[in-house]
Amino acid sequence: MSAAVERGRAAIIGGGVIGGGWAARFALMGWEVALFDPDPEAPRKLAEVFANARLALPGLADAPLPPEGRVEIVPTISEAVHGADWIQESVPERLELKRKVYQQIQAHAPEAAVLASSTSGFKPSELQGCATWPGQIIVAHPFNPVYLLPLVELVTTDANDPALVEKAKAVLASIGMHPLHLRREIDAHIADRLLEAVWREALWLIKDGIATTAEIDDAIRMGFGLRWAQMGLFETYRIAGGEAGMRHFLAQFGPALEWPWTKLMDVPELDEALVEAIASQSDAQSGAHSIRELERIRDTNLVTILRGLKARGWGAGEVLARHDAALSEASSLPRRFDDLVDLARPIRSLERVVPADWAEADGRMSEERYSHVLGDATRRVLQIIASDCEHTPGGSFVTAEIRIRHLGQAQAGDRLHVETLVNSGEGAQLRLFHALFAGERLIATAEHALSHLGGETPAPTPPPETLAARIAALVAAHASLLRGGAASLPAETTGEG
Amino acid sequence: MSAAVERGRAAIIGGGVIGGGWAARFALMGWEVALFDPDPEAPRKLAEVFANARLALPGLADAPLPPEGRVEIVPTISEAVHGADWIQESVPERLELKRKVYQQIQAHAPEAAVLASSTSGFKPSELQGCATWPGQIIVAHPFNPVYLLPLVELVTTDANDPALVEKAKAVLASIGMHPLHLRREIDAHIADRLLEAVWREALWLIKDGIATTAEIDDAIRMGFGLRWAQMGLFETYRIAGGEAGMRHFLAQFGPALEWPWTKLMDVPELDEALVEAIASQSDAQSGAHSIRELERIRDTNLVTILRGLKARGWGAGEVLARHDAALSEASSLPRRFDDLVDLARPIRSLERVVPADWAEADGRMSEERYSHVLGDATRRVLQIIASDCEHTPGGSFVTAEIRIRHLGQAQAGDRLHVETLVNSGEGAQLRLFHALFAGERLIATAEHALSHLGGETPAPTPPPETLAARIAALVAAHASLLRGGAASLPAETTGEG
Repeated sequence: MSAAVERGRAAIIGGGVIGGGWAARFALMGWEVALFDPDPEAPRKLAEVFANARLALPGLADAPLPPEGRVEIVPTISEAVHGADWIQESVPERLELKRKVYQQIQAHAPEAAVLASSTSGFKPSELQGCATWPGQIIVAHPFNPVYLLPLVELVTTDANDPALVEKAKAVLASIGMHPLHLRREIDAHIADRLLEAVWREALWLIKDGIATTAEIDDAIRMGFGLRWAQMGLFETYRIAGGEAGMRHFLAQFGPALEWPWTKLMDVPELDEALVEAIASQSDAQSGAHSIRELERIRDTNLVTILRGLKARGWGAGEVLARHDAALSEASSLPRRFDDLVDLARPIRSLERVVPADWAEADGRMSEERYSHVLGDATRRVLQIIASDCEHTPGGSFVTAEIRIRHLGQAQAGDRLHVETLVNSGEGAQLRLFHALFAGERLIATAEHALSHLGGETPAPTPPPETLAARIAALVAAHASLLRGGAASLPAETTGEG
Repeated sequence: MSAAVERGRAAIIGGGVIGGGWAARFALMGWEVALFDPDPEAPRKLAEVFANARLALPGLADAPLPPEGRVEIVPTISEAVHGADWIQESVPERLELKRKVYQQIQAHAPEAAVLASSTSGFKPSELQGCATWPGQIIVAHPFNPVYLLPLVELVTTDANDPALVEKAKAVLASIGMHPLHLRREIDAHIADRLLEAVWREALWLIKDGIATTAEIDDAIRMGFGLRWAQMGLFETYRIAGGEAGMRHFLAQFGPALEWPWTKLMDVPELDEALVEAIASQSDAQSGAHSIRELERIRDTNLVTILRGLKARGWGAGEVLARHDAALSEASSLPRRFDDLVDLARPIRSLERVVPADWAEADGRMSEERYSHVLGDATRRVLQIIASDCEHTPGGSFVTAEIRIRHLGQAQAGDRLHVETLVNSGEGAQLRLFHALFAGERLIATAEHALSHLGGETPAPTPPPETLAARIAALVAAHASLLRGGAASLPAETTGEG
């Protein structure tokens, strides 16, 4: 459906963080953009938003993108809205100002254009109040950063033609957003009402000296914030209710409404009608999945988010990274050359479990993860070879070629390990042979060819003497293990397929 | 620090969703676990929690794990707590019940053990009230699923020995959690106060017919829920305040406290002292990064989370997946065999941008992504070869070997494309040659060898006739392009390195 929307011309009125974010989203999705903002700093600010957006938005897609649309900063509202298909107003939150801007816009804009306000507080009926064409005006409230977050609250009134509302939804979907069309207008729409409740409670916590800003932020991002990135309040609680479902959850936690657990004490009565409304809406929302299925979906989502944050070294991911360091410290895997008590044994270069987010839909570990795991094993072997050699001159090994033979499969939760032999090491070249196991099954072998770069010249150079001597010792010790062909190794197991 | 904690013996009193989650976390981190729960269904429920936890928790780590600890369900509290280092109480939220349970626990538990309650509402001073040894009792309030979410609110009183509190923190960190130690006890601690405010506001939205449970959940998980998985309320708003910082943000949005944006109308006055407290706490929390740095960190985190959810096909990720489908539909890349207007040209098999979460710390696209991108290119070529052939018998190509030659680097935001030649196709074997470009630079070539599996037997079998004929036509048409050796191709560009 969204594919059917033609890329058009967007007029952006107000070029702050929100307006600039809209401009970036439209332009990176191929729209022409004309922006009006009287601030002399507007060009600099817009360039900064675009620099961020270009790094982040296009790479969200696993698909070819249209060429970036042309962006122009124009000196008047009339030039901005001339020929526009979509007009996005993001001026400061003062009703009189917005109404004045609409008068100017509607004096010059095409009648068929959508005029959408980014307002977080005003109802569309208030914005339509004194307008020339009230039916053109809607609320399309986005969330910062506008170029990344999909949510846009779409609020309309009876003055809006249903065809215009449908067009608005299609345009927003075509630039990658999720238009949430409100049933009725209300001050601050939906999301900001929830945010405002949290904000006010948080202010009390600080005022009363219970927590600092950092502690409140951690209370969010180490716990329920992770849940809310993938399921909201109700689906999460549905799971917490367990097999007994939403009615059970409400019965169990309803009494807490009368407890002093927040300063928000003006609470609705959780009567039969409200319980029934929530329970039946929750059935409609989540009833297609059993609680068990929802748990698995939630868990795999959380593993994905947590591991993603670990790769970034941020928030909950930092907690995981610290824990990994402690687990590694406590493990018996070799880290230093001296840990290799018997050089003639293969090097145990990796032990880990297949994460839930590494599995394809059919449950099998995806092909690219073989290269990931084997790369980790190579890094460990290189660390061992270079350990305790800070005094030797710099340089590093880089991959020249990797060759992977697939012999079997692994599933999420399987314990993996890798045994590595050093195949050869002459001059700047180093060749490793890896055997990858899931439990006791051999599921892949790999040959990893690396070149040593010296740091001063781009050409490969042999590694420092200490490293070369260690490599030579390993090659000599492993040679007998490699007799009879690498693929027959290790002898005690056989691969499938 | 956490590495220093010995794995010990945990007693779990109450084996519901929360107690079971604690049992799984302790056992999967190598602790021995003894669980007491009078519910006859406890063994089944525990097995279900463990089945979920084993799939999810061990794979969170990129490190070797200790062997799983032994788990035993025991018939009495005294057996459970005998010799325990940590006792976790997760019985229903009734103060009298909890106090009774503590009497039994303390009659049999070692004096040095930590006795932690999972209570979400009670203050530790209430729990310590009539206890034999009040100093042993603390609150350690976790979040569901306990085996995945790092947050645990640690609430103590002056009755607790500081050494016991330090021990509690170390144990919780050693099992991968983030203990948030509250400055002062308060009903419902921190996170549940924020949750309760949102919950009560959400009940009003449903009662007043503004939104359904599904709409409220989408308002969370498509917008601020994504932000809160990585930064909390205050750090997010600090960024929104822009270069002017937190004081500016408060000045701008402070007045909204008097607006009817939530039912929570008992608000603190945002006076000079409160503004100063928030601003200086925010400086201490986030001041090490400039706003520009925080924006980049936030954006890369969001890209990571959004792309992770896309891989799961869930929530905001489903919006992205639909958008990708529309972008693909609108692109000029070949999808069907008939789209290859000139067989003698290389096949344009991929166009995409390098996502922010594919970059290493130094900004370069990580090595494993080469294999990811080239795998995508292979899949596209296989789709083209098999297009419009639903009538031919089943079967599929699987990777036998992939050989990647690295010639250059790519950065986040770079536009990639792949040109592919069909190298050979005899019997069940198919060989593809890929050239991967970043902009106009050749950054890798690859040979991808595949085998066709017929479906009925595990042995490779030649593909159906239509496919074989198409492959033969491509091999013939590409042969002249391959003359002079694959690595010299495509001729119009040269690689670096």
